[in-house]
Parts: sequence; structure tokens; C-alpha cells
Amino acid sequence: MRAPFRPTLYLVTDTAQCGDRGVPAVVRAAVAGGVDAVQVRAKEGTDRERLALVVAVREALRGTGVPLLVNDAVDVALVAGADGVHLGQGDLPAEQVRRIAPDLLLGLSVSTPEQAAAVDPAVVDHLGVGPVRETTTKPDAAAALGAAGVAAVVAAAPVPCVAIGGIHPDNLDSLRGTGITGFCVVSEICGAGDPERAARDLRAQWER
Amino acid sequence: MRAPFRPTLYLVTDTAQCGDRGVPAVVRAAVAGGVDAVQVRAKEGTDRERLALVVAVREALRGTGVPLLVNDAVDVALVAGADGVHLGQGDLPAEQVRRIAPDLLLGLSVSTPEQAAAVDPAVVDHLGVGPVRETTTKPDAAAALGAAGVAAVVAAAPVPCVAIGGIHPDNLDSLRGTGITGFCVVSEICGAGDPERAARDLRAQWER
Repeated sequence: MRAPFRPTLYLVTDTAQCGDRGVPAVVRAAVAGGVDAVQVRAKEGTDRERLALVVAVREALRGTGVPLLVNDAVDVALVAGADGVHLGQGDLPAEQVRRIAPDLLLGLSVSTPEQAAAVDPAVVDHLGVGPVRETTTKPDAAAALGAAGVAAVVAAAPVPCVAIGGIHPDNLDSLRGTGITGFCVVSEICGAGDPERAARDLRAQWER
Repeated sequence: MRAPFRPTLYLVTDTAQCGDRGVPAVVRAAVAGGVDAVQVRAKEGTDRERLALVVAVREALRGTGVPLLVNDAVDVALVAGADGVHLGQGDLPAEQVRRIAPDLLLGLSVSTPEQAAAVDPAVVDHLGVGPVRETTTKPDAAAALGAAGVAAVVAAAPVPCVAIGGIHPDNLDSLRGTGITGFCVVSEICGAGDPERAARDLRAQWER
């Protein structure tokens, strides 16, 4: 059985932005600041390097109760003992991933109400809706939705949604009332001088 | 239970070299010419495109009894219902892949006697030993082994081995007596004007 997945502040890692501190240290600090879900996104390197990174983050999260998801790589998620996997529209189809990974939390990126409405809630646990704004950390992303676009996608979705893509303190408040359970950040935490404080500030702003 | 895997003429696909004919048509012709194992190697594109390619090759092989392996992507192999997966030294570790894929044929690339001797025959079904010669289809490959180097690796291996990497009619005969069960080709078939004839000629030369 999969646990329900309704994160408030969902960190997606960017290895380059974490820099010399390393991804696990940034994750630990971010969780201390209030991050309640973590997705490791690592396109660079070999599968073995990706696995080592995911295992290191898994160890950093041990005992925190914070779920760990892996971007794209279902095999890495299974081997690493992660809690879930996050799929894009170009990744393996969710229905077929569900068959080989019955116990993983399964997230899916969507950008339109049509994609959201097509989701089978028996297969997919939650959606990442975005991008909210143009972002430099995912150059292949769809056109920016804005808050109204996010709300339209969430309204069509049969499972809980988080917003993702270009979310910063200056546009976070605009996402209230869109129906999301929470939101993802990359740069705002991975690129912060003090990731714990950045997480605490984002969470406080959202819960204000 | 995995079937024994001792191919004679093992085709590794190169999508660019197959060109407008498409990979499945080249595979069909090559099998008609005597290819008895096929590995789909596709680094380009999305996972969903890789899956579509593997499924199309699986359909091309239906009824032939020729096993289909997938390079690197364990998740694609599982979702596509392939017979096996082939791992490089930078891919997920074989022991851990075996745990999530108990029924897949599992091949591993090795380049040294030490790597071959470290293989657990309860985990890995066969080895790809190479490269025999420098090759342009795998720019990240190790230094060329030559026939004597292949024989040294095979001698250390606890499972059946095929040779791979830069094998052509002019050096194929040198691989006799190295202890391999057979050999892999890429360019010699995928880049041939007549893949069926190329396969038939290679197989006849080897079995002469």
C-alpha cells in the first residue's frame, strides 16, 4: 500500500546548484527548515552515479519520515529503495510503470487540463502542475501556466497536485486558492546561501 | 528460470546506422540471415521513445525464438517485456538489478580479467568482452583488447562470453580459440546495404 502523498514544501534537487555542500547536506538542512518531500533529479552522469546520489539522500533522510522520490529513473528508484518516482510526459507511461513498481509513489508532470483529466487515480498518486513561470532549471519545460493556468489544471485532476516551475517568494502567494496541496522548489532552496532558512521562510510564507 | 544464453551472432542495434529502413526491419533481415540474439542500444531520445523502439523490435522478433535484450535501461526492459538487459560498468550494479529483475537475462560488459573474475554466476548470465578493436559506435569504450586480450578475459570468466567492439570480417577469424561462444556486431550489419546477407556471411565465416 502506498501512503497518501500531499506535501506542502517539496524540494527537487539540482546537483550543480547544491555545489560543494553536496546534495545530501542541502537536503538535510532543507528538511530541518520544513521540506516534507524530496525528489532527486539528476540527468547528468551514469546510472551508477545517480544511484549513489539517491542512496546518499536516502541516508540523509533516514528517520525523518520525509519521502524520497526519484526523477524519471524507475530502475534507480527500485534499486535504491526510494519511496517513489516522478515521471514526465516523455518518460515511461505511468500505467506500465505501475505494473513493475506496485509499491512506489507515482508522480506525473502535467501542463494541461487534458493531461490531468486523463490520469487514472488507481495508477498515479499525485501530479506536478507547471511550470508556473519560465524556469532555467528545466529548459525543456512547457509554456508558463501562471496561477490561473495552474488552477485550471488542478480542477481537472483526480489526484492531489503540487505546483512546480519558477516558484519564488514573489509569486508564491498567487498560488493560494489554486487547489494545490503544496509546491515544489529547486533554485530557491538549492541555490540559497542558507537552505534551512530558505525552506523555513517559504513554508512560513505559504502557511501565513 | 532464465534460459541459457550462448549466442553465436549477436546483433547490437544502432538506430542512426539502420537509417530510413528502421531498426525493426534491419533486425528482421538480420535474423533471417542467422542472427540469434538482439540487443537494442538507444542512448538518444526519451524513455518513451526507447520503449516504443524496444516494443517494435520485440514485435519484429515474435515467433523467431531470438532473445531480445535492452542496453542499460532495466526499467525499459521490464516494461517492454524484453528477455534481458545488458549492463555496462557504469550502469546499475548487477547484484542489485538481479534483485528487482529476477527473471531477466543479465549481461555485463567487461574489459579486464579482474572484472570478469569478480562476476557472480548466480547473478550474471553472460559477459560481453571488449572492445576487440577501437570502434566509433561506442566512444566511451575501454582500450582495445585484441584477440589475446579477449582470451585472457574469457579465461577468467565464470559464465559464457561473447566478444564485442570493432569486429569485422578482417579480424573475426582471430577470435577463434579465445573461448567465446560467439560475437557481437553493430556496424557490420546495421550499416550494411543488405543486412540479411551481411549476417549470413558473418555466420558462415565464423562457422567455417
